[in-house]
Amino acid sequence: MSDNWLESLITNTPEDGYAMAIKLSRMAVKLTQPNADKREELRSVYERDADALIAVSQVVATHFQTIAKANNYWRQR
Amino acid sequence: MSDNWLESLITNTPEDGYAMAIKLSRMAVKLTQPNADKREELRSVYERDADALIAVSQVVATHFQTIAKANNYWRQR
Amino acid sequence: MSDNWLESLITNTPEDGYAMAIKLSRMAVKLTQPNADKREELRSVYERDADALIAVSQVVATHFQTIAKANNYWRQR
Amino acid sequence: MSDNWLESLITNTPEDGYAMAIKLSRMAVKLTQPNADKREELRSVYERDADALIAVSQVVATHFQTIAKANNYWRQR
Amino acid sequence: MSDNWLESLITNTPEDGYAMAIKLSRMAVKLTQPNADKREELRSVYERDADALIAVSQVVATHFQTIAKANNYWRQR
Amino acid sequence: MSDNWLESLITNTPEDGYAMAIKLSRMAVKLTQPNADKREELRSVYERDADALIAVSQVVATHFQTIAKANNYWRQR
Repeated sequence: MSDNWLESLITNTPEDGYAMAIKLSRMAVKLTQPNADKREELRSVYERDADALIAVSQVVATHFQTIAKANNYWRQR
Repeated sequence: MSDNWLESLITNTPEDGYAMAIKLSRMAVKLTQPNADKREELRSVYERDADALIAVSQVVATHFQTIAKANNYWRQR
Repeated sequence: MSDNWLESLITNTPEDGYAMAIKLSRMAVKLTQPNADKREELRSVYERDADALIAVSQVVATHFQTIAKANNYWRQR
Repeated sequence: MSDNWLESLITNTPEDGYAMAIKLSRMAVKLTQPNADKREELRSVYERDADALIAVSQVVATHFQTIAKANNYWRQR
Repeated sequence: MSDNWLESLITNTPEDGYAMAIKLSRMAVKLTQPNADKREELRSVYERDADALIAVSQVVATHFQTIAKANNYWRQR
Repeated sequence: MSDNWLESLITNTPEDGYAMAIKLSRMAVKLTQPNADKREELRSVYERDADALIAVSQVVATHFQTIAKANNYWRQR
């Protein structure tokens, strides 16, 4: 795992927090299947599969929950 | 990702919070499958599939949990 | 979405909180598949499908967690 | 839904809290499929299905999380 | 359910907390399918099924979250 | 389960916390299927299966949520 891919959970905006949630959800796939070509192949399958896309959304939702909490829900802006 | 699609997690009412949860759940699909036509095609499939609809509800429930917390459950109304 | 379907997350009793959790879980399906006839059709399928019923229970459990927290677990009764 | 099936989330022991979590997970099935004979039929299927049993465990785990929190994790015993 | 299988959620170490999470995840299966022979049969199936093993991990993760919180994340050691 | 595989949930960085989340998600598989050869066999299957990879990501997300909380989201760095 390349160092420094996740320096901090703190982001400036909720949008940035959401982008980080997507990054976190993809990283687990990357670490389980390190071969980039195979990942690309799998991606071409699941981006046309409604069930897989919804499952990805669930992972993102869980990470976003963590990140939102870490940022105190960006309340003090 | 278009800027400013998620300015804040704070909403006026629980209904607005729920609508935001749906928006957040769809955004992950949009970012994973950016092609609008393909998304429309997938949507026409899963809106007739009970399992997919229930899975969507699960994603919405997770986001609603985050948003409700951010809004301190809209208690001080 | 009809206005005022979710005025507040506060309920008098845990039973009422559970009923609200069921309402919240169904609302996502309603908003994704707005056609009432198609929903009825889907319902007739999944109410005979153990996996779907368990998946519905999971969504309800997530919403109940949110609502119970909002009500401070109905401790001060 | 029969009244008073869930008077309180407070239990004396963690075991009782776990039993309540099972009750809460079954109640959603009951309310979605009110016909007791059909539920019995479904039950005879899923109790021999590893995937369904694991899915039930997930629902129970979510409810147990809620109940444990409500009871402050039974720390002050 | 045999009494006293879960006296407390407090454990000495994170390892013990993880072991308890596994115990909690199996207990729901035990209570849904009380026949030990049938459970053994199911086990021999799912221990060779990647999807089932991952689903079991998810249940364990949820229980571990609860137990870690109960133990204040074993911070004051 | 080998002793001392999880001395503490506290990590120096978010990256280390994420690596621990992956370790925690694999440990449940290890404890359910203790045979290393069979696990290797299963792994060769699921690393080519998009659905399984996404499901693994979900388990990791849940553990990461726990670990991030334990570390107070690495805010005071």
